[in-house]
Amino acid sequence: MSEPEQLPEQLDPAIAGRLKRNDAGLVATVVQQYDTGEVLMLAWMDDEALRHTLATRRATYYSRSRGRHWTKGESSGNTQHVREVRLDCDGDTVLLLVDQTGPACHTGAPNCFEADVLLTED
Amino acid sequence: MSEPEQLPEQLDPAIAGRLKRNDAGLVATVVQQYDTGEVLMLAWMDDEALRHTLATRRATYYSRSRGRHWTKGESSGNTQHVREVRLDCDGDTVLLLVDQTGPACHTGAPNCFEADVLLTED
Repeated sequence: MSEPEQLPEQLDPAIAGRLKRNDAGLVATVVQQYDTGEVLMLAWMDDEALRHTLATRRATYYSRSRGRHWTKGESSGNTQHVREVRLDCDGDTVLLLVDQTGPACHTGAPNCFEADVLLTED
Repeated sequence: MSEPEQLPEQLDPAIAGRLKRNDAGLVATVVQQYDTGEVLMLAWMDDEALRHTLATRRATYYSRSRGRHWTKGESSGNTQHVREVRLDCDGDTVLLLVDQTGPACHTGAPNCFEADVLLTED
């Protein structure tokens, strides 16, 4: 995640002060395709992931299973260009509006909610 | 949450077996307006909240702060009729497609992501 020197290296304290992190220091992140409204996935961010996302517009998360940051598409090429970032009313959930390249899900599906339908309309 | 006797009182074991709950026994739940695609809020469900939601189509969550179940709109009247329920690829996030009555956010905003914009398109 190398960046030009002029980019800030700390998350804006005014934003950091509004985050309500869980015990692991993370906020949930809902990722939505900006033009279609499709909900693509849910991921997690710590302060550094949010800072990097805001600074670069490349969606970056914290992987709980791998214990490290990852920028979406860094291995698959299926990147997310971030158009808009919003924080919810109680500060524990971020909404990213992105432009997704390729499938969002690691299974190859367009989004992570494709396969398993628990209930549909009557 | 009284129900007719014929409704099941346990979450379908086939569904329960696919859930990957966090340490508190919960899965994240993204709530989306079914027709506009608007992301309304993020909430949490345990097995009983999901069972009740599937059985009644009234969106029901588990409040971490209050330590109890709540059916959306039970005090405000701002109910959510559930049209569709999906589980994500790793079983730790539910997507609810709902028809929201009134504002979704306890602040009176249409959704919980209205007020705090961290980044917009250039």
